[in-house]
Amino acid sequence: MNSRFVYFDNNATTPLDPDVRERFIQALDLYGNPSSMHMFGRQAHEGVEWARGEVARLLGALPEEILFTGGGSESNNTVLKSVLHPDFPRRKGKVITTAVEHPCILETAAFLKRFGVPVVILPVDSEGKIDMNRYVDELDDSVALVSVMLANNEIGTIQDIADIAKLAKQHGAYVHTDAVQGVGKIPVDVEELQVDYLTASAHKLYAPKGVGALYRRKGAPLFPLIHGGHQEKGLRAGTINGPSIIAFGCAAEKAGSLLDKEYARLLRLRTKMRDGILASVPDVMINGHSEDVLPGTLDVSFFAAEGESILLYLDIEGIAVSTGSACATGSLEPSHVLMATGMDAELAHGSIRFSLGRFNTEEDVDYLLEKLPPIIERIRKMSTVSRKEVHQ
Amino acid sequence: MNSRFVYFDNNATTPLDPDVRERFIQALDLYGNPSSMHMFGRQAHEGVEWARGEVARLLGALPEEILFTGGGSESNNTVLKSVLHPDFPRRKGKVITTAVEHPCILETAAFLKRFGVPVVILPVDSEGKIDMNRYVDELDDSVALVSVMLANNEIGTIQDIADIAKLAKQHGAYVHTDAVQGVGKIPVDVEELQVDYLTASAHKLYAPKGVGALYRRKGAPLFPLIHGGHQEKGLRAGTINGPSIIAFGCAAEKAGSLLDKEYARLLRLRTKMRDGILASVPDVMINGHSEDVLPGTLDVSFFAAEGESILLYLDIEGIAVSTGSACATGSLEPSHVLMATGMDAELAHGSIRFSLGRFNTEEDVDYLLEKLPPIIERIRKMSTVSRKEVHQ
Ligand SMILES: Cc1ncc(COP(=O)(O)O)c(C=O)c1O
Ligand SMILES: Cc1ncc(COP(=O)(O)O)c(C=O)c1O
Repeated sequence: MNSRFVYFDNNATTPLDPDVRERFIQALDLYGNPSSMHMFGRQAHEGVEWARGEVARLLGALPEEILFTGGGSESNNTVLKSVLHPDFPRRKGKVITTAVEHPCILETAAFLKRFGVPVVILPVDSEGKIDMNRYVDELDDSVALVSVMLANNEIGTIQDIADIAKLAKQHGAYVHTDAVQGVGKIPVDVEELQVDYLTASAHKLYAPKGVGALYRRKGAPLFPLIHGGHQEKGLRAGTINGPSIIAFGCAAEKAGSLLDKEYARLLRLRTKMRDGILASVPDVMINGHSEDVLPGTLDVSFFAAEGESILLYLDIEGIAVSTGSACATGSLEPSHVLMATGMDAELAHGSIRFSLGRFNTEEDVDYLLEKLPPIIERIRKMSTVSRKEVHQ
Repeated sequence: MNSRFVYFDNNATTPLDPDVRERFIQALDLYGNPSSMHMFGRQAHEGVEWARGEVARLLGALPEEILFTGGGSESNNTVLKSVLHPDFPRRKGKVITTAVEHPCILETAAFLKRFGVPVVILPVDSEGKIDMNRYVDELDDSVALVSVMLANNEIGTIQDIADIAKLAKQHGAYVHTDAVQGVGKIPVDVEELQVDYLTASAHKLYAPKGVGALYRRKGAPLFPLIHGGHQEKGLRAGTINGPSIIAFGCAAEKAGSLLDKEYARLLRLRTKMRDGILASVPDVMINGHSEDVLPGTLDVSFFAAEGESILLYLDIEGIAVSTGSACATGSLEPSHVLMATGMDAELAHGSIRFSLGRFNTEEDVDYLLEKLPPIIERIRKMSTVSRKEVHQ
């Protein structure tokens, strides 16, 4: 058995922060339906509205601009599918997005296409930044919506959303950013970003799974994905998940207050990890942007080594990492993000995402740097022959 | 201050069962993403698959026929909106539903109509049962989907789903039932009911909010409402909410084992409550079906008394009840369910739903029967004049 457990998969999901956990467990007693008029309902309602204020504050938004949803995927689907609604301005107009978005954007874009929406998927450069020239070429007055992620979940590259938004607005297009990986890790302010919609997900910031937020600028058109009761201004039906939302509020508050300190700490750990890997493992490549990158995300390609093998050997040592996106498990496709950066499929298959979070320590990084080099060496030795068979 | 707190709003939502709560809190430590390949992911995945088995067992389904969603509204929307998909057989064919469905069915049906789907809303009789003659008249080979709720959330009337499904199948239509209010309260078996789709919601059976289930018979067509990652066989994207799903599984297990005992106990409490009200308050009417009714649901109309006032006076005494559906809070519309039974708007406005649950006792009913009669008397005295002004 391994001597230690190290969780380096914080971009997939995070554990509960102890303070959030405590608040969450307390909030389980506020079980009333926040829409109910009696005391049980009012108490839950109060908690939800407090949380709305906290989430709004973290994003630089007004409380009434925040809707609670069931998660990041739902928030993203809600915005993109609104374009199909008969009342959306420029209904079924062009939708511009990027090749490195999360599947919940890309699959939704593909769905829109089936319904006759012209969809443009912008290419990115080798560091994962979108091609701004191509973007400007595509912008015209037929664009209904631009949706570009704030920070990439695999390689951590941060896009220049404010610039992207400013250009879109010159053409009267609405702008959405999937900020699921950014919120709580880097400063996120809807006024600075100039977006009309922004997606966040609680379980990426040490809060429970199954709850998300959608910022919608006052007056921006939006239509429900889930129709039904009048909850969330009629924009998201379903009994409001009071306890999880309250925990989300607590997590937002804490993320805001820790932001600067955690940013610096994670960046230090990331640098240590990166430099350590570069020093101890030959033939590796660091992916993502060299500067505009999430502080805790380190994506590394190992030449002549299968990512899945690396993951499994690290797992035996108690270290959790990921190959590309957790949602794609079971698929043998190489990461669409790495492919979009121009990487060849074989190298993409040899890539590992280390994502650090609030509970990782220097010792965790030391432990990885102790275990990783021999694992890579062993895999490379074993696989020189067999890999050829697999990949040809 | 009141001496006691009594929660008679279990159809709106339920508190956590203590066993479910304990299991839930334990499961918060299984924070890994169930789609991840490492140990943290595998442990969460195991818990989720255990829960899938428990929910399937409660419904008489196969585990692979159960999808986890974010709640009852989402499950209902997923089924109904599938009819719009290019690959749904009889795409945009007729959809038959009823006038007493939950808003998440009725609003979704209205949405389908906007997209060109012919929607038939079946009327009900004075006890809330659908008009079978009208139903048979509407059935033909253009029907894509029939969606009838198993049990009504306001008046508790149980529909004859097996008969409804058998008739639909003779015309090759698919059949869905919103069983949110039935599951855990009455026996629910998808084989007996002969349905293709069935909706359940965890927070109605003493499990956390923000998680639901959708039964889909093997081979029945279904398309994602939330596109994205490959979770839930590609039918419901979004990071799987492991802890809540595990708690749902625990709640399903317990609901199954308590079903018969709780059914009898709640029916006894309901009868006591009903007879007590009839004996102590003049000019009342009991709504819903006299026999085919949920054991814990008692809907009562009080002549010459505003429901909202009754609710607020009961709240002062620590008793939580509801006027119609919690989702409609803030709306001054009378209950669409009661209106559909042919009740006039004024009487509908004077209606209260008492919904009993697992943690209600004889003493709770006694307490209500002590507090309610003087409240009604007071309201009737105060309101004889003012009500006329409001309603005319
Ligand atoms: C009959 C019925 N269907 C659907 C729902 C919606 O379920 P949820 O609140 O889990 O979205 C409810 C409860 O609100 C209900 O009573
Ligand atoms: C960039 C990005 N967008 C969206 C999502 C989806 O969020 P959720 O799992 O809350 O649906 C994720 C994570 O899975 C993500 O990394």
